[in-house]
Order: sequence, then structure tokens, then C-alpha cells
Amino acid sequence: MATEQKIPRRGFTPAEFERRTLRAQKIMDAHGFDALLLTAPPNIRYFTGFDTQFWESPTRPWFVIVPLEGAPIAVIPEIGAPEMALTWVKDIRTWPAPVPEDDGLSLLAATIGGLKRKHGRVGAEMGREMALRMPVADFLTLRQRLGSAIEDGSPCIWEIRMVKTPAEIDHIHYICGLASDAYAALPAQISMGESEREVVRKLRIDIARRGADATPFLPAISGPGGVAQIVCGPHDRAIEEGDILFIDTGSTFDGYFCDFDRNYAVGRVADEVHRVHEALWQATEAGIAAAVPGAKTDDVWRAMAKIIDAAGAIGNNVGRLGHGLGLQLTEPPSHRLGDGTLIVENMVLTIEPGMEYAPGKMIVHEENIAVTKDGPRLLTKRAPRELPVIR
Amino acid sequence: MATEQKIPRRGFTPAEFERRTLRAQKIMDAHGFDALLLTAPPNIRYFTGFDTQFWESPTRPWFVIVPLEGAPIAVIPEIGAPEMALTWVKDIRTWPAPVPEDDGLSLLAATIGGLKRKHGRVGAEMGREMALRMPVADFLTLRQRLGSAIEDGSPCIWEIRMVKTPAEIDHIHYICGLASDAYAALPAQISMGESEREVVRKLRIDIARRGADATPFLPAISGPGGVAQIVCGPHDRAIEEGDILFIDTGSTFDGYFCDFDRNYAVGRVADEVHRVHEALWQATEAGIAAAVPGAKTDDVWRAMAKIIDAAGAIGNNVGRLGHGLGLQLTEPPSHRLGDGTLIVENMVLTIEPGMEYAPGKMIVHEENIAVTKDGPRLLTKRAPRELPVIR
Repeated sequence: MATEQKIPRRGFTPAEFERRTLRAQKIMDAHGFDALLLTAPPNIRYFTGFDTQFWESPTRPWFVIVPLEGAPIAVIPEIGAPEMALTWVKDIRTWPAPVPEDDGLSLLAATIGGLKRKHGRVGAEMGREMALRMPVADFLTLRQRLGSAIEDGSPCIWEIRMVKTPAEIDHIHYICGLASDAYAALPAQISMGESEREVVRKLRIDIARRGADATPFLPAISGPGGVAQIVCGPHDRAIEEGDILFIDTGSTFDGYFCDFDRNYAVGRVADEVHRVHEALWQATEAGIAAAVPGAKTDDVWRAMAKIIDAAGAIGNNVGRLGHGLGLQLTEPPSHRLGDGTLIVENMVLTIEPGMEYAPGKMIVHEENIAVTKDGPRLLTKRAPRELPVIR
Repeated sequence: MATEQKIPRRGFTPAEFERRTLRAQKIMDAHGFDALLLTAPPNIRYFTGFDTQFWESPTRPWFVIVPLEGAPIAVIPEIGAPEMALTWVKDIRTWPAPVPEDDGLSLLAATIGGLKRKHGRVGAEMGREMALRMPVADFLTLRQRLGSAIEDGSPCIWEIRMVKTPAEIDHIHYICGLASDAYAALPAQISMGESEREVVRKLRIDIARRGADATPFLPAISGPGGVAQIVCGPHDRAIEEGDILFIDTGSTFDGYFCDFDRNYAVGRVADEVHRVHEALWQATEAGIAAAVPGAKTDDVWRAMAKIIDAAGAIGNNVGRLGHGLGLQLTEPPSHRLGDGTLIVENMVLTIEPGMEYAPGKMIVHEENIAVTKDGPRLLTKRAPRELPVIR
């Protein structure tokens, strides 16, 4: 029952946060930023270690400033102060939110205004794969009010977060192992005729039992020989002889995600399905092998696309063949022609080849890896080469 | 074990979506908007019924346009098209996201540009208790590119969503009942000496077993006679004799949240705790009774504040005494002096009196109600007047 991997220590040492911040400040300086203005949960957690499920409530904005020198500054609602005080952040400024007339904006402007100026620019979460967690109207007011320019800090933030620390990789490895075991145990728990929804409920409970903190992402879909999409569901459809049952999960441990799928054959599936499954298993092998320091994301894409194309792919509505992961289910880079990201040591990536082999029949595989100087290191337990069967 | 309430039909009829849209269009016209531009999951789901856990991936923006006449238009990544086609939305326009160079922006601009113009203004999620789920840089580009002005549509959107339909209330009632039963069953499942984290894991599994789809919010905290905050945790702290164990949950059924807490005495707690608990129980009664059509949120606040103050409150870092809920854990209005929202039939509200009665010792109660023309209707099963005891 229990996953036998060693449970990583929760949280990170103040020394790790200090190292993260010092490295970030070098990158910020190169990007010409005096500070980063952070509002999104993964960015705030990356620099402070602050954890709350209260992000689910959009009522109050929270801010963290990473200055070019010194430790991060938290500008947050009073409701969060006792917990923020438990982190390594010592400069905590609060207001009694919610205050619709001025929900932290003056306090935030004064805090940024008090920073040392070198470049005259502040980086904010304005770009790709990020959303600003504050009212845009307030953000525009802040922009007008500040002496410094607020510009898109997302390339800078992604340069910082795309490369993981060893402790971050340990976290991801743990949740990957735990979800791998749950996937492997699933066929023994479910039967033909059960609904996708019931299957997902059992898996959700098993993942929680094994030690995941949360499972924000657990789509499941089934269909004869393949599925039409891989991001929605479960529905009430009963799994039937000849189906592929596709399940994906982003579960978390201490804030860090796994993101990988598994496919199951329900009873006897068509020979063609076994052929496509084998091609995707081979494409995954090729994708993993290609993810080495010095390669580009385009190379990883090419290694997989070659095999998928040869196997007769007619499409793939996912738009890419894998991506980064960490504090988010999906992060840059993308394995995609034209992405052009240089792969370096300590990136964590999904390898996700998929193909539609007949109209409405798609199969997608996925594994998670860490890039090491000695080559790729599998964080998930590799999917079985033969499709597991549900009877 | 099972919750005995009837499970509501999942989803809503096309007729309900049509009624929601027609009502929204009247409100939009009064606000002077030709269209609403929606990017946030709860807003998209409200108008389309589209459900996905894929919102967890911030890589691709999704857009829905609600025009002043006719049905909503979806402008979405190809990956979402098969599922959107299952909703009542018929006009679905897609692009092969992710495409960093133009991630749906041209398609979105063309779609908005093609709408009939009456007011020359488009409402977007720029204001309170909402976050725009797209890169702000893209939003600013869109704003420059469009012939119509893009302005803050959030007061308009909240006027639409703040009043629920009977089917929405049924959904909330169901998840409230289910979580109530899980809370009631908890003391029999846990013991003194267990950690907050283990307690939460058991409750999370039980809530899933009883039929919740997900539990995005399940903070727990314990402390001698009260707690310092109510939005973070669990931690590894073991619950001890004399503690208050506080647990809150936002669990969901078919997209709709409950949001209420429960308090437990661990062994024997101080007499003062019983006194404060009784005052909060009375404050809850008063808050519920005050939430009638024609009253204002300020009145609900006053009804509770009077009792809390008389009981010797020295503070409350929550900043309000309850709020709206529905497709979000927290929504407008706020029970708060100065909020001034008129309470009308079919609002769903939390009644959430809380007080710090000694430094670092806070107790907070919470129930969920629907406002009916005959008065408040409890959706949760009322917390016991005597603190349940964990031994």
C-alpha cells in the first residue's frame, strides 16, 4: 500500500531561499530590473516558502517584492501575517484587507518606491504562462503611480524558476513515485462497467492515502481504441470492452506537481491500438534520450515527432510534445518546433508524445524527467510496455 | 456513511443557460456593454457549462464572449474544442495553442470586432475578486488594437452572478450537506495526538468518498484555546488536550463550492473557550436571522458585531464576517461596514462571525445560507451548540 520512497523534508531551509534569491538577483540585474513584483502563488512560494490553500479565494491580493539586494518583502493582508511570520521573510507589511477603496495599493506603491533604484524598472508577471493575481484595474493604477516603469518580468522569472534546485527535484520525484504506484495499483481496484467518475474517485482517494497533499488535476476519459481529448472529464460514461481508458494527474506534495498520464486497455482492444501504443512507447524513449544538456526543446520534439509521424499520426490537438513542470502543472519550456529553449542541468520536463491515429482516436503517453549532467533521470516509474488491462 | 441527500443532476439545461444569458444581457445593456470578454474559469463555466481541471495549466488562454444579443462565442485552444462542442455553445473558434507569437489574440480581436456595436464598450474582468486569466501584456495589446473600449466589467459580472438560480442553489446545498456529514463523522475517526496533517488527510478522503468532486480548500489549524489564523495549515503539529482544532473546507460538487468551518475541542478546553464558542454560536444565529431580502450586508455585519463585541472581542484579522459563494469559494458581497450591498432573494452567503478573545486565540464559526423571500434557508447542517470533543 505505502509508497516506499523516503518522504522529503517539507519546506526548504533558509539557506536554500537565500541561494534562490541571490541567483535570482543576478538574473534580475541582467534583465535590468530593480525588483520583481510577484502576485501569483507559485512565484510567492518559490521565494518565501509561504503555503496556503487560501489562494482559492480571489478576494484579497497578496504581494511579494524581490529587490535587487536583500531579502524579499511581503506586502499582504493581515489575515496572512501570522503564517508569513513563520517563513524566512522578516519584512512583512500588512493592511486590513479587504478594503475595496485601497486594497494594499498605497502600501505596495510606498514599498516599491522605497527601494534602491539602479535600472528604474520593475518586472511583473505580465507574460506567458502566468496570470497576475490582482485586479488589472489596480495594476494599471499602480503602473501610473510609480516612478519606476513596470514591465514584463516573465522571461526573467521563468529563467529563474525553469532550473530547479536538488531539493525541488526531490519533491517532484516523490510525488511522481507516489502517483506511479497509484496508477499501477488501479487495475486491481476497478472493473469494466464502472463509470469514469467512479474510477477517478477511487484513484483520487488512493493518491491521498499514499501521501499526496492535493490532486488539483485528475482528468479521465475513455473511448473505443482512443480518446477525442485528454484534458476534460471524468464523465458518467461506463468503461467498456475495447476502450482505452486515459487518466492524467497533477497531484502535489508540498507544493510540487507531478504531471503524467497512464493508459489502460479495457478488455481486449484492437491490434491497431497495440501498434500505436508501442510507437508512443518508443517515441517516449526517444524523447527521454534526447533531453540532454545542450540539446534544444526543438530537438526533443523532433526525436518524438519522427516516430509518431512514421506510425501514421494524423494530428494531435495538444500543440506540443511536453513541457516543464514544478510549482505549476505546466511551465516553460515547450517541446515544440520553434521553442528554441536550451536544455540545461536540473530542468524538470515532461516527455509527452501523442497522436491521433484515426479521427477522434488519440493516444498520449507521458513521463517526467530531471535533466542531469549524466543525462536524463526518470522521476516517474516508467509506464509498462504492454498496456495494463482492466477486466 | 453515504450522505442521504438527493444528488442533483449534473450540469444545467440549455434552457437554464439561455435564461442566464438573457438576464445577463439586460444587465450588460444597463451597464453600457456590447459584450463581456471572459477568461476566468468560473465566468466561462457560468455561461457555457464548460468544465475542465485543465485550468490548472496556465499555458493557454481561453476566451468566451457574451454578446449583447445571441449565444456566447467560445474562442479557445484546439485542445478544448471536442469538450466545448458538448455544451450548448455552438459558435466555437479555435487556434492551435500554444502559439507564443499570437496565442489567440488575432482570433479574439476579429471575433469582438465582428460584433454589433451599440455602446462601443466591452466589459472585462478587471476589477475586484477576479483575476484575468491571460497574459496582461496580451490584454494591453488587445485593448490598443480594438475599436471598442475595454473597461472594467466586474461590477456587471458580479451583479449577474451574485444572484443564483434554483439549480445553482441545489448544487451548493448538496455539497454543504455532504461536507456537514463529513465534519460530524470526524471525531469518531481521529484521536488526540494525531497531527493536523493526518486529520486533514482522513477528512479529505471521507469528503471524496461521500461524493465531492474535489476539495481545493481544506485548511486546518490547532492551538490551545484558539488559533492564530484560519487560512493556512495543516502543519505537523499534534493536537493536544485543551486545543481548539479548527477546520474549514471549500469542497465542490459539479463546480459549486461550500465554504464553512467547524471547531472541535480536544479533550477538556478552558471554560472561557466554551463562553466564546457560545457567543459565536449566538452571533451566527443573529447573522443568519439578519440576512433577509431588503437588508444590507452592513446590517448582517452589525447583527454579529454587536454580540462579538459584547463577548469581549479584541480583534479579528479576517476583515469581514462572511461573504458570497458559488462557483468561487469567495464572491461578493462582504458582510462588512461600508459594503452596502442590498440583500436579495437567491443570494448564497456565508455567515462567519469570528473573534480573537485573547492574543493569538481566535475562534471563528461559519454557516452557508440561501436568501429566500420567506427568510434565510440554512444550506449547511447547523454546527452543534456544544463543541464536539476529540478524545
